[in-house]
Amino acid sequence: MSERLVVVGGDAAGLAAASQARRMRGADELEIVAFERGSFASYSACGIPYWVGGDVAERDDLIARTPEEHRARDIDLRMRTEVLELDIEGRAVRAKDLESGAESRLSYDKLVIATGARPIRPDLPGIDARGVHGVQTLDDGQELLDTLDRIEGKRAVVVGAGYIGVEMAEALINRGYEVTVVHRGSAPMSTLDPDMGALVATAMLGMGIEIVCEAEVVEIRADDAGRVRSVVTASAEYPADVVVLGIGVTPETTLARAAGLPLGEYGGLLTDLAMRVRGHDDIWAGGDCVEVLDLVSGRERHIALGTHANKHGQVIGTGIGGGYATFPGVVGTAVSKVCELEVARTGLGERAAADAGLQFVAVTIESTSRAGYYPGADPMTVKMLAERRTGRLLGVQIVGREGAAKRVDIAAVALTAGMTVDQMTALDLGYAPPFSPVWDPVLVAARKAAGAVRARG
Amino acid sequence: MSERLVVVGGDAAGLAAASQARRMRGADELEIVAFERGSFASYSACGIPYWVGGDVAERDDLIARTPEEHRARDIDLRMRTEVLELDIEGRAVRAKDLESGAESRLSYDKLVIATGARPIRPDLPGIDARGVHGVQTLDDGQELLDTLDRIEGKRAVVVGAGYIGVEMAEALINRGYEVTVVHRGSAPMSTLDPDMGALVATAMLGMGIEIVCEAEVVEIRADDAGRVRSVVTASAEYPADVVVLGIGVTPETTLARAAGLPLGEYGGLLTDLAMRVRGHDDIWAGGDCVEVLDLVSGRERHIALGTHANKHGQVIGTGIGGGYATFPGVVGTAVSKVCELEVARTGLGERAAADAGLQFVAVTIESTSRAGYYPGADPMTVKMLAERRTGRLLGVQIVGREGAAKRVDIAAVALTAGMTVDQMTALDLGYAPPFSPVWDPVLVAARKAAGAVRARG
Repeated sequence: MSERLVVVGGDAAGLAAASQARRMRGADELEIVAFERGSFASYSACGIPYWVGGDVAERDDLIARTPEEHRARDIDLRMRTEVLELDIEGRAVRAKDLESGAESRLSYDKLVIATGARPIRPDLPGIDARGVHGVQTLDDGQELLDTLDRIEGKRAVVVGAGYIGVEMAEALINRGYEVTVVHRGSAPMSTLDPDMGALVATAMLGMGIEIVCEAEVVEIRADDAGRVRSVVTASAEYPADVVVLGIGVTPETTLARAAGLPLGEYGGLLTDLAMRVRGHDDIWAGGDCVEVLDLVSGRERHIALGTHANKHGQVIGTGIGGGYATFPGVVGTAVSKVCELEVARTGLGERAAADAGLQFVAVTIESTSRAGYYPGADPMTVKMLAERRTGRLLGVQIVGREGAAKRVDIAAVALTAGMTVDQMTALDLGYAPPFSPVWDPVLVAARKAAGAVRARG
Repeated sequence: MSERLVVVGGDAAGLAAASQARRMRGADELEIVAFERGSFASYSACGIPYWVGGDVAERDDLIARTPEEHRARDIDLRMRTEVLELDIEGRAVRAKDLESGAESRLSYDKLVIATGARPIRPDLPGIDARGVHGVQTLDDGQELLDTLDRIEGKRAVVVGAGYIGVEMAEALINRGYEVTVVHRGSAPMSTLDPDMGALVATAMLGMGIEIVCEAEVVEIRADDAGRVRSVVTASAEYPADVVVLGIGVTPETTLARAAGLPLGEYGGLLTDLAMRVRGHDDIWAGGDCVEVLDLVSGRERHIALGTHANKHGQVIGTGIGGGYATFPGVVGTAVSKVCELEVARTGLGERAAADAGLQFVAVTIESTSRAGYYPGADPMTVKMLAERRTGRLLGVQIVGREGAAKRVDIAAVALTAGMTVDQMTALDLGYAPPFSPVWDPVLVAARKAAGAVRARG
């Protein structure tokens, strides 16, 4: 007897789940219907800043698999179709074709919720002015590019200085805009500690990006035609022909909330380790709409990142396909290339460690990406946190140039394994002059951290 | 009461040990005398191929710290002074000043043996012809460059195709020589499995390096003046104006052997985890003259690598200084940049795994260094070995371009932690389009390996 799987959301998590389920169960035993309200499916949202900035030439380069390719593999992918309601009791969804306006109801045996995240749009006067853009979906990216093509002015304001905010600031300056970044924190990149974020600020200034710190936006002003004209903070007004919201994203769980499904502190769906929605054996959720366990702090977090979404989809599809897989959690690894810098972090920063009740030592070292005598050796700053007394690694932040970012993977694996910084000093990392000084920068940091743990006691 | 520490060998391990001991104990309580028979101390032997090839301009760029700098820190470093005998019973060494010929005897309270390694010189007719060079020490490198300056011919033969052999072949072709590499194996880079070594062979051929595989050198022919003329194998003769030996190195333990100290299967000194020579509480040994525990195979190996030598020196100096540190062993990580490729390996290859009595699955995947749509995404091949049944990671080999080599560190940490390939599939590695596809190549390999473990049972 054939079952029906309904997937709500047609990007990384949803369609990875559908694809994996299809690999394991043929169309004769599992019917798969997937709904996507946007115009695009299976794309790399992480690539949008590079497309806007011109590094990636074509929008379609970001699309991993077209709707037709999914349909050819017996996944009934219905584009521009918005799910309006999850009827958990009735085991059905209600959907609306956004082209025709027709509504329909479809029952399911198994349900996957992969509704993603949406950019945070602060409740400000003028937030809905034309020319104010979030950049979460490919549709968002296209709308922003349409605005850039249409407007004549060259003044851009980015609100917020998280990864997306900084990447978008760089993309816009590469397109010839005057860019001002307005943000609340004391340094850009709030996923870094402020001392490390300050290195990013220096690089942004070096590219000609204006940064306004510790500034709260209170209003967005528009002209009579409803087009954005400026961004207003408590103390200043910044003229703007276009505004990009880079404040971050929040789980898109409107449907899940209405259906009474369990949500966490950040508004994301809560699942078990097999990515099943807690208390619901036949409902899975994954990607940017869920909260994930942070293995270092022991708490749930919301992290919108394509690599997690793909892993979730793989786990979900394996479960639906009758196999066994889990997503054990994250350590909070993130890397970014911004303003000629490579920036990376994993684990906990000072604030998050303190919030988790951890006492720690924090050390910072300067080293180079290659042996000092080898051409192209670039400076690299590594900050490392270790738990007081146990010496357990808690987190690493790296800011440097070529070769800096992916070094954070060393720490990501060490965090997963629960290593101490003293154990890390003996790690057998790859060494050759074109790739590392004889002591890898991560080992230099580990040595200093181990010394600090001993000294602090 | 002051003690005397005698250090035999003035490169990475010996002088790192001396420096760390000095940091912990002042000159009033510890006298330090170090003997170095060569003309250089504290240099990066790993950098020699780049100096010969011209990437590093000056010989002195490779010197981390001059003899004068060591002396300024109360380390009595005696250059061009060869230790002739270790008198273990008498707790003294006998040394000869190579300039004056004067011999002396010096007692010690603590002894560090850091005599390094020497290039393997096969016992062949003609091996001592002028123009036949090993490249282990900075003196060796200088002699090779002197030969290159003197000779007019442009034909170079490299015997052996390990890391040094391939790096030297590249250095010589960059200097305008016609280079032939003659080696015994079926592919270059015997630290890689032959299927991965074949990728290196292709790149070498692409640079115009001639490779002769499965060829045993039987003779080196010289002209009447004693200058090298050709390299002869069982089936052919290769004209040569200069010959570089890249066969590998062997521990330089002549003194230790004569003194009856314990040596292992590869002729290296055997130590405990604190790097003390087994059975001798006041004698330490480290660097290229010792064997180290391979944590994956559980056996002792000989690995000549500056990063290990520095770690050994740190551990030894800490012990002599009255602290506590150990060198737990290696997982066999090595990275190299050869012929426009980045090459890396860690853990066991197929041969070593079988020799250790392990049954395993081996998988190979092709991926890219960045998201496929991001400019500069280069192909990368990852081979992964996992133990049958347990799924424990056994080894990884990577051949690619930019961004390939240091990815091996992910596997080096996972090996150290004893992770299974299934556990690795959930690793939270850094992802952003400029640095990785959404599934990092190492994760793609881990997924495939985990599947192979399940299938094989």
